[in-house]
Amino acid sequence: MEKGNDHERKKMTEIPKNITIRSVLGLLMAKTDGDHEKKKVISLGIGDPTAYSCFHTADAAKQVVADSLVCGKYNGYPPAVGLPQTREAIADYLSSDIPYKVSANDVYITAGCTQAIEIVVTILGRPGANILLPRPGFSIYSLCAAFRNLEIRYYDLLPEKGWEVDLSAVESLANENTVGLVVINPGNPCANVYSYQHLEKIAQTAKRLQTVVVADEVYGHLIFGENPFIPMAAFSYIVPVITLGSLSKRWLVPGWRLGWFVINDPNAIFVNPKFMERIRNYCDICRGPATFIQAAVPAIIMQTTETFYQKTINMLKQTSILCYEKLKEIPWLICPCKPQGAMFLMVKLNLAELEDISDDLDFCFKLAKEESVIILPGVAVGMRNWVRITFAVEPSCLEEALARLKCFCLNHNKQHTHS
Amino acid sequence: MEKGNDHERKKMTEIPKNITIRSVLGLLMAKTDGDHEKKKVISLGIGDPTAYSCFHTADAAKQVVADSLVCGKYNGYPPAVGLPQTREAIADYLSSDIPYKVSANDVYITAGCTQAIEIVVTILGRPGANILLPRPGFSIYSLCAAFRNLEIRYYDLLPEKGWEVDLSAVESLANENTVGLVVINPGNPCANVYSYQHLEKIAQTAKRLQTVVVADEVYGHLIFGENPFIPMAAFSYIVPVITLGSLSKRWLVPGWRLGWFVINDPNAIFVNPKFMERIRNYCDICRGPATFIQAAVPAIIMQTTETFYQKTINMLKQTSILCYEKLKEIPWLICPCKPQGAMFLMVKLNLAELEDISDDLDFCFKLAKEESVIILPGVAVGMRNWVRITFAVEPSCLEEALARLKCFCLNHNKQHTHS
Repeated sequence: MEKGNDHERKKMTEIPKNITIRSVLGLLMAKTDGDHEKKKVISLGIGDPTAYSCFHTADAAKQVVADSLVCGKYNGYPPAVGLPQTREAIADYLSSDIPYKVSANDVYITAGCTQAIEIVVTILGRPGANILLPRPGFSIYSLCAAFRNLEIRYYDLLPEKGWEVDLSAVESLANENTVGLVVINPGNPCANVYSYQHLEKIAQTAKRLQTVVVADEVYGHLIFGENPFIPMAAFSYIVPVITLGSLSKRWLVPGWRLGWFVINDPNAIFVNPKFMERIRNYCDICRGPATFIQAAVPAIIMQTTETFYQKTINMLKQTSILCYEKLKEIPWLICPCKPQGAMFLMVKLNLAELEDISDDLDFCFKLAKEESVIILPGVAVGMRNWVRITFAVEPSCLEEALARLKCFCLNHNKQHTHS
Repeated sequence: MEKGNDHERKKMTEIPKNITIRSVLGLLMAKTDGDHEKKKVISLGIGDPTAYSCFHTADAAKQVVADSLVCGKYNGYPPAVGLPQTREAIADYLSSDIPYKVSANDVYITAGCTQAIEIVVTILGRPGANILLPRPGFSIYSLCAAFRNLEIRYYDLLPEKGWEVDLSAVESLANENTVGLVVINPGNPCANVYSYQHLEKIAQTAKRLQTVVVADEVYGHLIFGENPFIPMAAFSYIVPVITLGSLSKRWLVPGWRLGWFVINDPNAIFVNPKFMERIRNYCDICRGPATFIQAAVPAIIMQTTETFYQKTINMLKQTSILCYEKLKEIPWLICPCKPQGAMFLMVKLNLAELEDISDDLDFCFKLAKEESVIILPGVAVGMRNWVRITFAVEPSCLEEALARLKCFCLNHNKQHTHS
């Protein structure tokens, strides 16, 4: 391992279990209040671009949900695992990308991908178990694992390798109590889209370690780089894969709370009747999304046009390039990889060149206070002295925010303040 | 204690942690398949009457939700604890029934009352803790507690006293590790509506035991007997009360998954910053109902007319009386108390007089098979050889189901079969 990498490791940290992305962003937002009445607050904090008209969902999708509501047939309880027609529609939707047919019985409908995470972490858990999470990653996994007394072991994503999984770290972290390897692709927060070869290596590693892959594909199909999106389930003939997803990102409706998880285990290595009963029972205390939204899913999938998907991807490609290029102009910020998918990128702070900034938290608080721009401190996703920036923002707002970010760095540049 | 009561106790049982109401009803439903093509299946199994037009929600409520969806302003993530205007509307709604003003900050919006139960059970839990649950009760509490490794201690409801809480049992079961006393009023499954005096005694008992009351009021206001509905929060100056509720029952929209829990602790006995942070963090991994449904809540509450509420209550009063009177005509079934609220009643089986029926499960399976009528075996709610019947069913269906139930009992009557 190179010395640079060692240095890198030290900057990494555990994702805090007692602070959430939301709570950090809430504190940052409070910093902006009243300080800059003339400067509109711009948040590059979370992956929810629905406030901007260029990221609005299709009218057709809204209309089928409204019809499903008003017809009055779907106001009763949904089945705990989801409506049959919803499970069928998701099974068909996912089957089109992989070399086998997903069964509707293996699909569980959840209240957003967040609930899918929560359920999967809970059902995998048992006394003494541990779970392998990516660092940087998504804090809901850490929170869920902490609430379920599941030991967390972080493996690193490697910026010098396009944020690939450090497979040797995975091998050394896993033991007989490892119940899952979480892989987020397309990546939050790193904008990675893994190659077929890398995904296959992950599957083979998980097979050797006899653990399930939890494939978080909530950003599935939101890609705009060189690599195509390959669902991890394509490798479920190697190792069992639990796929997580939702309508939230591709359809731009995170507020609808419609997600799923899917047990992809064509060789029946992992599933057994007791485990399936445990899933059903746990779903019974979770329930899931509103019945009438579930009932609309087949029509939503059927009626969404390629034009709509492409419009979102074009917009994300445009804003990701804008973000990446503008960040390049700020010498104290380093973005190691060009974004290829999803809605975020990770940026390293060169604190040695910045005056009056002690760490990433301090950077973000001062940026919020001085420029009314909100970005997420890396510590919230497990990487100290980095920051996470979402580019899923209307281009002129993004440009304005990045101009303010540049201005902020210039103002805090040591040469500037000492000259 | 009378001998009869001793006998009663023995018939009680733990609520099974590995079978759910849904799974039992699913098995019963499977029994009916194909057996009686001429007899339509009638389910008196769950508290969801939305299949019947006499229990449809108001068009105005559907319309405000549809408007909230179509306007496109509420497709983004909701705040983890709920939209501010939703919390405010629920706070106002609940404040009108109690002698103090609930703060919106004490209201947490959840995906139905089920998620409220799940969150409250989880946040109250700690290693070694126990929770006091009513028997008969609602199985989601037992399931949640089991998943959270919270010890369950059942106290009995007393049929001979209108299903009041056995307060002496509560006193003897509680210890320093008791973190909550769950009280369901109006009662599921017993149709009880507790008097002011009994609720006050419960509060005083909980105070002595230094434990919080978890007041499940999901059937709040759905009453049609002598006692008015008194929210337990009216006694929160005696003891902290966590109130659980939802739109599901009063507004007849269980499929909308819109519930809440409220921390009623005006003397700040129970709340502390660490606990409140724990609630917020846990809400972050739960999220809650669809944003556009949340956004419609103020208008739903404002626009629902007294006529709508009264229509539901009149219908429930009518069907509860119908159910109670028809059951009286079946000598082998004993319903100890006239229903006063909610949607269910508990019926004791006189198995000594019934041929070929070994227990409540056997009774329900044979009833499903022979008469295509679904009712819930008492074992699923903690009372062996009782059954739970919902009367929240369209009157002609209910009458037909009860006629079949009578026919079933007549067919299995020992005198009949031996004559």
